[in-house]
Amino acid sequence: MEARNIFRNISPIDHRYSVSEKELFDALVPWLSEEAVVASCVKAEIALIIAHLSLRGTLSAGVRRSLETAGESVESGAVYREEEKTRHNIRALVNVLKTRVPPEFAPLVHLGATSVDILDTSLSYRVKGVSSAVVLPLLSELELLLCDFAEREAETPQVGRTHGQHAVPITVGFALAEYVSRLGKSILEIKKRSSELKGKLAGAVGAYNATSMITDDPLELERRYLAELGLEASEHSTQLVEPEYLLRLLLEFNTAFGIIANLADDLRNLQRSEIGELREGFAADQVGSSTMPQKRNPWNSEHVKSLWKAFMPRAMTFFMDQISEHQRDLSNSASQRFIADYIAGFCLAVRRMISVIQGLGVDRVRLLENLKGASGLPGGILAEPAYILLAESGVSDAHELIRKITLRAEEEKLSFAGALAAEGDALSRIGNKMVELGIIKNASEALEFFEKPENYRGLAPEKARALAKKYRDIMKEAAYV
Amino acid sequence: MEARNIFRNISPIDHRYSVSEKELFDALVPWLSEEAVVASCVKAEIALIIAHLSLRGTLSAGVRRSLETAGESVESGAVYREEEKTRHNIRALVNVLKTRVPPEFAPLVHLGATSVDILDTSLSYRVKGVSSAVVLPLLSELELLLCDFAEREAETPQVGRTHGQHAVPITVGFALAEYVSRLGKSILEIKKRSSELKGKLAGAVGAYNATSMITDDPLELERRYLAELGLEASEHSTQLVEPEYLLRLLLEFNTAFGIIANLADDLRNLQRSEIGELREGFAADQVGSSTMPQKRNPWNSEHVKSLWKAFMPRAMTFFMDQISEHQRDLSNSASQRFIADYIAGFCLAVRRMISVIQGLGVDRVRLLENLKGASGLPGGILAEPAYILLAESGVSDAHELIRKITLRAEEEKLSFAGALAAEGDALSRIGNKMVELGIIKNASEALEFFEKPENYRGLAPEKARALAKKYRDIMKEAAYV
Amino acid sequence: MEARNIFRNISPIDHRYSVSEKELFDALVPWLSEEAVVASCVKAEIALIIAHLSLRGTLSAGVRRSLETAGESVESGAVYREEEKTRHNIRALVNVLKTRVPPEFAPLVHLGATSVDILDTSLSYRVKGVSSAVVLPLLSELELLLCDFAEREAETPQVGRTHGQHAVPITVGFALAEYVSRLGKSILEIKKRSSELKGKLAGAVGAYNATSMITDDPLELERRYLAELGLEASEHSTQLVEPEYLLRLLLEFNTAFGIIANLADDLRNLQRSEIGELREGFAADQVGSSTMPQKRNPWNSEHVKSLWKAFMPRAMTFFMDQISEHQRDLSNSASQRFIADYIAGFCLAVRRMISVIQGLGVDRVRLLENLKGASGLPGGILAEPAYILLAESGVSDAHELIRKITLRAEEEKLSFAGALAAEGDALSRIGNKMVELGIIKNASEALEFFEKPENYRGLAPEKARALAKKYRDIMKEAAYV
Amino acid sequence: MEARNIFRNISPIDHRYSVSEKELFDALVPWLSEEAVVASCVKAEIALIIAHLSLRGTLSAGVRRSLETAGESVESGAVYREEEKTRHNIRALVNVLKTRVPPEFAPLVHLGATSVDILDTSLSYRVKGVSSAVVLPLLSELELLLCDFAEREAETPQVGRTHGQHAVPITVGFALAEYVSRLGKSILEIKKRSSELKGKLAGAVGAYNATSMITDDPLELERRYLAELGLEASEHSTQLVEPEYLLRLLLEFNTAFGIIANLADDLRNLQRSEIGELREGFAADQVGSSTMPQKRNPWNSEHVKSLWKAFMPRAMTFFMDQISEHQRDLSNSASQRFIADYIAGFCLAVRRMISVIQGLGVDRVRLLENLKGASGLPGGILAEPAYILLAESGVSDAHELIRKITLRAEEEKLSFAGALAAEGDALSRIGNKMVELGIIKNASEALEFFEKPENYRGLAPEKARALAKKYRDIMKEAAYV
Repeated sequence: MEARNIFRNISPIDHRYSVSEKELFDALVPWLSEEAVVASCVKAEIALIIAHLSLRGTLSAGVRRSLETAGESVESGAVYREEEKTRHNIRALVNVLKTRVPPEFAPLVHLGATSVDILDTSLSYRVKGVSSAVVLPLLSELELLLCDFAEREAETPQVGRTHGQHAVPITVGFALAEYVSRLGKSILEIKKRSSELKGKLAGAVGAYNATSMITDDPLELERRYLAELGLEASEHSTQLVEPEYLLRLLLEFNTAFGIIANLADDLRNLQRSEIGELREGFAADQVGSSTMPQKRNPWNSEHVKSLWKAFMPRAMTFFMDQISEHQRDLSNSASQRFIADYIAGFCLAVRRMISVIQGLGVDRVRLLENLKGASGLPGGILAEPAYILLAESGVSDAHELIRKITLRAEEEKLSFAGALAAEGDALSRIGNKMVELGIIKNASEALEFFEKPENYRGLAPEKARALAKKYRDIMKEAAYV
Repeated sequence: MEARNIFRNISPIDHRYSVSEKELFDALVPWLSEEAVVASCVKAEIALIIAHLSLRGTLSAGVRRSLETAGESVESGAVYREEEKTRHNIRALVNVLKTRVPPEFAPLVHLGATSVDILDTSLSYRVKGVSSAVVLPLLSELELLLCDFAEREAETPQVGRTHGQHAVPITVGFALAEYVSRLGKSILEIKKRSSELKGKLAGAVGAYNATSMITDDPLELERRYLAELGLEASEHSTQLVEPEYLLRLLLEFNTAFGIIANLADDLRNLQRSEIGELREGFAADQVGSSTMPQKRNPWNSEHVKSLWKAFMPRAMTFFMDQISEHQRDLSNSASQRFIADYIAGFCLAVRRMISVIQGLGVDRVRLLENLKGASGLPGGILAEPAYILLAESGVSDAHELIRKITLRAEEEKLSFAGALAAEGDALSRIGNKMVELGIIKNASEALEFFEKPENYRGLAPEKARALAKKYRDIMKEAAYV
Repeated sequence: MEARNIFRNISPIDHRYSVSEKELFDALVPWLSEEAVVASCVKAEIALIIAHLSLRGTLSAGVRRSLETAGESVESGAVYREEEKTRHNIRALVNVLKTRVPPEFAPLVHLGATSVDILDTSLSYRVKGVSSAVVLPLLSELELLLCDFAEREAETPQVGRTHGQHAVPITVGFALAEYVSRLGKSILEIKKRSSELKGKLAGAVGAYNATSMITDDPLELERRYLAELGLEASEHSTQLVEPEYLLRLLLEFNTAFGIIANLADDLRNLQRSEIGELREGFAADQVGSSTMPQKRNPWNSEHVKSLWKAFMPRAMTFFMDQISEHQRDLSNSASQRFIADYIAGFCLAVRRMISVIQGLGVDRVRLLENLKGASGLPGGILAEPAYILLAESGVSDAHELIRKITLRAEEEKLSFAGALAAEGDALSRIGNKMVELGIIKNASEALEFFEKPENYRGLAPEKARALAKKYRDIMKEAAYV
Repeated sequence: MEARNIFRNISPIDHRYSVSEKELFDALVPWLSEEAVVASCVKAEIALIIAHLSLRGTLSAGVRRSLETAGESVESGAVYREEEKTRHNIRALVNVLKTRVPPEFAPLVHLGATSVDILDTSLSYRVKGVSSAVVLPLLSELELLLCDFAEREAETPQVGRTHGQHAVPITVGFALAEYVSRLGKSILEIKKRSSELKGKLAGAVGAYNATSMITDDPLELERRYLAELGLEASEHSTQLVEPEYLLRLLLEFNTAFGIIANLADDLRNLQRSEIGELREGFAADQVGSSTMPQKRNPWNSEHVKSLWKAFMPRAMTFFMDQISEHQRDLSNSASQRFIADYIAGFCLAVRRMISVIQGLGVDRVRLLENLKGASGLPGGILAEPAYILLAESGVSDAHELIRKITLRAEEEKLSFAGALAAEGDALSRIGNKMVELGIIKNASEALEFFEKPENYRGLAPEKARALAKKYRDIMKEAAYV
């Protein structure tokens, strides 16, 4: 009953994406599959026996080994078959485990625990594990690629755009450095939040009722249990661990997802036929369209955006799952199972973005053409410095004056520099101001400045390099990749 | 590469729920799995060839059969292996199909179509198919169970509750009839919306550019293509079918989901220890809690609510997928694949609710105890008719007067009837009014009325029966189950 | 206490947007403000008295007038002052109203009703009212503008785009006809759904308990009450009207909102500096940027998209408000008050889109330049018909062959026609096929076709005109505008 | 034009809730109203002039004063009238401000800034301000009330509930301590996140293009500008501040909102007629229902939950607003204006919960009755310790054995202790184990234990007191209230 053709699965994660990102899928299985759920619950049950023995002072290395071996012998299928009888997943697991551990330890199996002491703890264990084993390495890999890209293209001129309109110049590296900075901080948050996930051994309603019947220091028993799994205890528990530890991590995943979706949108727009500044890698025999042979679509960036659309709204579920009546109702149980899907979906998007950045081509010719304004008002993007210099020279309605020059340039099909040339007074004020600021030596060189928009780029290259260096150092230190 | 242990899947649908609801899962696979995607796309490609031949007048029954046989020979695995080369799923499918159809028809494969002519059409085909083959029969089965329940318990007295407080009496059947009515209408909407799903053969941007090069009546070609699949054409197409046909169906699924979640909430609350009016079926050897042997939890109702939390927010994705730039961007592609998950999640909830209703027990003793107000103000729920009758008798501040009687009853630990008995004037006004209305024969019988709250139930039984009858007839006529 | 400087309001609807769209705001106040809530509840209470009298057969035209006059005399402020005492809004309103109606009718005020009989009924009344008085006329105005635009530009060539890449030609009118078709159908749905809103007079738990004490035909009393307000009864009621009547209308509003947001996205992208095919109207003295005098931003389209982001997710609230425990809890009360905001936000977006379409400029020069492929592969968008014709001529690997021609054209900086000219065999097959199809007279004219992409436009103009005509007729018939 | 009757506003915040929570509304206006937007933008513009002067070394205390005075003279109305001309809000504000500052400073107004340098900075200023002036004090007030409550009721016995079923005992204080712990941590997060909000003076595309024309240290100019407003600079800017600083704060607001909504759900359920353990304060003349005079509804808790439903989904907007194309599009502009609504909605919920906790009554009689299990299996909640003790005594199937005892007790209408008494062997094993653990002195006292469920409460009182003390100390130290 336990093998199935993958194409008979229903979730795209378990068929299509398990094929297209096989390596990633295989890395996720030990943390996110049902096998992982069972294995981590068994691990928690074994940790509980060890904690009991350790508190009683009767734990030896040999006993530990025999228990761990017993735990490893439990397969998901056996637990499922038992569950058909009990109709309770943890009771089933307990029944199976009792037959596997040395008989003298059977009475200790699950002793003092309620199901959720195992379930919530093992959930934290898995999510913490997948965060450091898969999510953070993936994100760091992407971050380092972005650092490299930002640094490499730190000087490459590009037109800055606001509202989809040409604004003032930047550089390609500066544009990418936005994501270095945003994603970098999100990685640090994820690291912090995942290390804060908690477990519990506080019993059916969180008040240590049961364990208080077993030991006079139930908090110490809880401490030892969780320490076996690398966790600490929830500050307060009901039947559940406080939901916010996990919630905040999931929200930060969603935050990082948004950053990557924003990057995807930028990339796919910069690949528009009319813009063409960047281009996703394209295999020699790849087909763009089944019917339009000339097409090369930014489909990987679109794919990332589409995954964001599919998964971002699930944050609503995370918020709804904060609410559990009294010491708990079960209405967060099925919904929480889908956290595995969510994390897989997020990782798929990161993985895809890594491929995009690895193969991302830069078309320097188109970049410069666009910056020069081939198809709009050539040089128009220098209206801003003209206005600023004129304003600084003491002209109060400088903004309006320059705006009219741009209108005239358009009507008369001149470049902005051309139209400015005809405004002797304004031009000389601007030139003098530039000399005063040390931008040019001689006021007569002013016009030249307005013909080379790429020089008006502020601190773009410096910011690009500084951010790339900062976050590369941080990522290298964390040594995920 | 194509078989996998189900416990190594990531989505709960493909492991846990495929086991616990095996029959349902198996019914969904032919519509929602990747196998179903490939098979329905092949079906659409074959339909296209048939449409070409039929328009040319060269279609014979034998040719049709040979084409259909060719289509059936295509397995998902083969298409996936080809896609490794093309990196384009439809082009891969086309390449494979060309080797399967009789050689003379190879040039007709995909002729005039863009990928989405196949993909969107086959999506509509699958969603329409799963709606009539699985969703509607499931919903009808649930609706009929609710009809039976509402009718059977049409007379069973229950206290009506607002704000979780005892209000005035109803009957159990009337309470359930709410869901008969709400779900019944939703089923009719789903039937309508699923039958309205559309396909297309309008080409890369929806303007029939390609097919206009092939025939002088491209609309007729589209008509024949879609008719093969039981569909009609989108009124306007870009590369995509207009998204709202599908959106409205999915929103109605979500509406039905909300109705069922509301029912689940009612049921689990009515199973609270202190209420205990209803009870989910419980197998003899079933375990309620791994640590509290006395527990019998309403976990199936909780499960349904939890599925709603997991899936309801995906409506945000449906709304986001309305937006596709220009004649389409691909950012709805991955997200739409998860519609399969959504429909499976919805069906799982319906299926579970069916089990709940099938096994739902009614505790008549507790129902009557609660109605009589064992633990609050006995008979307090008759304050309303007292107020109304008093008001009708011409007392303007009747509401305030009765409110004070309820306060006094509480202080003096009387029943409401007991406290009322002490208010001779009010009681006689009420009694006279009741005689006038034909509720009692003699004013002296008034007090008796206030001792039997179950008689103050309005049209509850009549409504329960009428709705049960109406929707049973509708469901039977539709003959889904 | 009742006047406030609008700039001291918190919601942007009540300050900024009430100024920028004053006329619309003023049209919404009679339906969506708190004044409207109070007035419509009073109207419902008066309707209830009238229903009682009419059922008793004692209603005269004079009595009706005196009651209506009494109702109109109730101001919100008076009710609010009374509510400070009662802490119950409907009880407050009832208390005030009792002092305004002729004394003999005071005992009939609210008789048999629970608060929600008034509240839910008046909500349906207001939402139905605002739908036909404001929403539908606004949407129809937009639809007619789109019809005009689509028809006017039915022949204007434009490059079709998929994935932001040039695909194959369409016309501007065809592109807009997408929205004529999608919005048109949504308007018809809104019309239907708003006419289906229901009211109730079924009492505290929906079973007509109270009204059964007053009349032996409580359904008839309900019918007369609702008829006064132009409504019919909910099929089943708890304390509440079944939530789905309103839900479905709100979801359809959100559907229309998504259509308009999609249009907004298309428009703002078509105004990118590098595309420049369309342009929002721009006043002579308007400032595009506070610092970049040359900017002309598509800020109205962006505004519409932004409103969609603000309001679309509120559909989650609508779905959550489906759930009310037992015969109702109050947890939908505050949330439902914000439906007024939602409708206002939606109307603001529609209103803004109307302005955009009214002032939308079309740049025919840029359209043709883009179509000809100035900055990509000139004529590359005709790869599709070349492939189709070649395939039809019997060449099996036509797609691959043409894809290679486009690559060569790119490498050698040729136009597509230029590269095709060098492929004698392919070209002649294509030419012959075109002759066969009646597209050209002589195979030698084939190359000419590939130099004029605007001719490869399928049924674009026909679709544009047909849809414009269809929906203009429908809108005119409905006579909203 | 600027005054309006509040009942003609559309948002409930600006009419109904501005009346019912007048004090809170008045406290929010200086931060969240449009007046606050204008005033804080003016403040930012003045800060910019001061930064310019300070960098040039020409700032005197007198000049600062004259500038601040000029700033304070700008009213919203004047700016709005100017905007009718400019159709650009910041340009309008600049135009007005230029006429108010001493003429020699007019050229410095807005110098080097793009609109968003002002808008995003002032938004951070306002949100930071409202957080420390209103949100944090409100939350601290609630937290301290919860601390007091938890401590006061630390020993009050209550039945713990899971799945709405009686589980094992806790205390009322322990149950409330859950919220002390969860909300306490959220307050600390809000404090941290609000102090991290950032501003910017990095120009149109974030690269300091314009300010680089004005000074050779644009970062220092930015630093001085922001320091005037108590802010630091965004690590990277496009035209916008990085969105995640604000996003994380808003998500934490939503997290705190969820905690409070969970508390509200618990409270309203504990007020059910059948449970009645807690009760919201109720004024003497307050009306519970317009028609059922006996009703006392938990309407304040329901109101809080309802506000959560209305506002929680807006987190979707916050996530969507992370995405802005290239150096920014404007599609986050309108949506961000509604952050003011969101914060107001959140504060309204906190404020209402404060009232609830202030007036919350505890019914010790009902608490004990419920714990003793009046209406279920009396003493059944002690099945857990019986099972644990039996298991510890070495009985392997203890869980099953005890489960059967509970079933028998039910059938024979015994208390759990009564049924246990009949099981000599089990009872003596349990008694011996209890002696061993020091819970009782003599095995014969075991039965007594099972008759007093309130003693089986684990560490409930200790946890309640410890958490109350910890968070009271933290709140007192922060000194918000």
